[in-house]
Amino acid sequence: MKKIYTFLPLKEEHKKLLESSSSNCEFIHLGQIKPSLEQVKDANVIIGNIPVDILKNIPNLEFVQLNSAGTNGYSDNPDFPKNVLLANATGAYGVAISECILAGILTLLKHMPSYILNQSNHEWKDEGSVKSIYGSNILVLGLGDIGKEFSKRAYAMGAHITGIKRNIKDKPDYIDKLCTMDSLYDELEKADIIVSSLPGSKSTYHLLGEEALTHVKKQPIFVNVGRGTLIDSNILEIALKENIFSGAYIDVTDPEPLPKASNLWNTNNLIITPHVTGGYHLDETLNRIIQISATNIKNYCEGKEIMNKVNHVQFI
Amino acid sequence: MKKIYTFLPLKEEHKKLLESSSSNCEFIHLGQIKPSLEQVKDANVIIGNIPVDILKNIPNLEFVQLNSAGTNGYSDNPDFPKNVLLANATGAYGVAISECILAGILTLLKHMPSYILNQSNHEWKDEGSVKSIYGSNILVLGLGDIGKEFSKRAYAMGAHITGIKRNIKDKPDYIDKLCTMDSLYDELEKADIIVSSLPGSKSTYHLLGEEALTHVKKQPIFVNVGRGTLIDSNILEIALKENIFSGAYIDVTDPEPLPKASNLWNTNNLIITPHVTGGYHLDETLNRIIQISATNIKNYCEGKEIMNKVNHVQFI
Repeated sequence: MKKIYTFLPLKEEHKKLLESSSSNCEFIHLGQIKPSLEQVKDANVIIGNIPVDILKNIPNLEFVQLNSAGTNGYSDNPDFPKNVLLANATGAYGVAISECILAGILTLLKHMPSYILNQSNHEWKDEGSVKSIYGSNILVLGLGDIGKEFSKRAYAMGAHITGIKRNIKDKPDYIDKLCTMDSLYDELEKADIIVSSLPGSKSTYHLLGEEALTHVKKQPIFVNVGRGTLIDSNILEIALKENIFSGAYIDVTDPEPLPKASNLWNTNNLIITPHVTGGYHLDETLNRIIQISATNIKNYCEGKEIMNKVNHVQFI
Repeated sequence: MKKIYTFLPLKEEHKKLLESSSSNCEFIHLGQIKPSLEQVKDANVIIGNIPVDILKNIPNLEFVQLNSAGTNGYSDNPDFPKNVLLANATGAYGVAISECILAGILTLLKHMPSYILNQSNHEWKDEGSVKSIYGSNILVLGLGDIGKEFSKRAYAMGAHITGIKRNIKDKPDYIDKLCTMDSLYDELEKADIIVSSLPGSKSTYHLLGEEALTHVKKQPIFVNVGRGTLIDSNILEIALKENIFSGAYIDVTDPEPLPKASNLWNTNNLIITPHVTGGYHLDETLNRIIQISATNIKNYCEGKEIMNKVNHVQFI
């Protein structure tokens, strides 16, 4: 009998689904808490992102199913116990975040902030010409679940999609052109809209720096739902003030929360949301995390390969 | 040699395209003015929506190409000269308006007005759970160019589309279910989102009245880009205050402009834009009107059937 501890905000239907995945497991649902080692010391499986400091001290731990798509702090953490299986929740966030990306782009393209302000002044005022997703060149930085789900939707709306990713072997139909990061500067020149869902890492840190921005030509809209470290806050502010970007929507900042005194708060043509596009904000996200977890518990109990397996770095 | 007068905001490339459509025509481009009869009295063709009072007095008029999709004031006007061909510009507005519908829906679903307000207060504040287009039941009232283009996009985003139109013979793939207006009340009950692009007419006047609203069950978002006469302003205000609609986006009001004193301006969860989703706000719209016009001039000069022909009512 395997002991499985979960750390998710589960409804009864979710618990049933998980528990039906294997008859040979005991589930203990602790909800969204940070547990003590004492609470989980007999765990064989953990579902949820609990601290590695605890994970590393669980003697019979065999498998950790994260609730996040990102694996920072786990796969790259030397304390993460070797020989423990690790899986992420990629596939759970694409729907929620891709719709938020579209919300940000369309809000900017159609001058919604101005119309909302005019409305508060009871003002019936035409804010002039608009641009469209249809016919635009969209540069998508990062083609994980989020980048792909967004690309599908923008492609269906008539955009031309250029995707940048590490491995460009398999081009989906909804991507017009696939490139590696070597082509970043060339592709920045052609973009009407730039969307990043890149994770935080050494290679993405301040990737959109001053030099990169000299290659931005078409006053694109910039969207960042990846990590705030992609672009320095001061550089973003300048890029908007100098109309290098005609507008921007960011759900991530550096640091988070964005300090009260940051100039970004009242930079024109910038929309900020407080890192809310993902998480459990959309029911569908949690449903998908549960589905992935249930499938993986079944696979794990039957000795099959788990899905979304992450090859964590071994620091021995 | 046919004389063709145009009343559109044409760029040089548009003039060239139109003039290349037939070698046997003389074009006179007057721009967006209201002409005198004297200015157009030798016209054989008019491109643009000029008053019927003038049209009826042009002796050799043969063909009127409207720049609008709607034909109110022309096809239903007893003064419109009989035996003059009439065509509309359906197909020109779908892209522009469908993107605005999505902008309105996503702005509401993702709490953008609250985040924009929080941002102005430098406030990093989570506004809680959101809903999605993915998986939602969308009721589309009116399946002309606008309703169809919107449906394509929402379907690609994972919505279930029910369309209501007069003729339900041909169901496109991107519509899950087609109904006639007889099913309106049944379909209102199931809708998470209601989108109307219905024209103004006797049959759509106050269609969403008190009785209809008793059939609205799921606190849907309501979008109106058709005509403001679809719903009485007081009824809309009450529907939002009583959470019959969880939110609404309207680009059309009754009357227009919306009076300064209207309660709608500061009704919660309502977004108002001043009848701007169409017009010439998007370049693509004008491009498409020119393409339709050029095709029709060619057809007309070659004695072929024109596209978008409108059967105007004969009042003889």
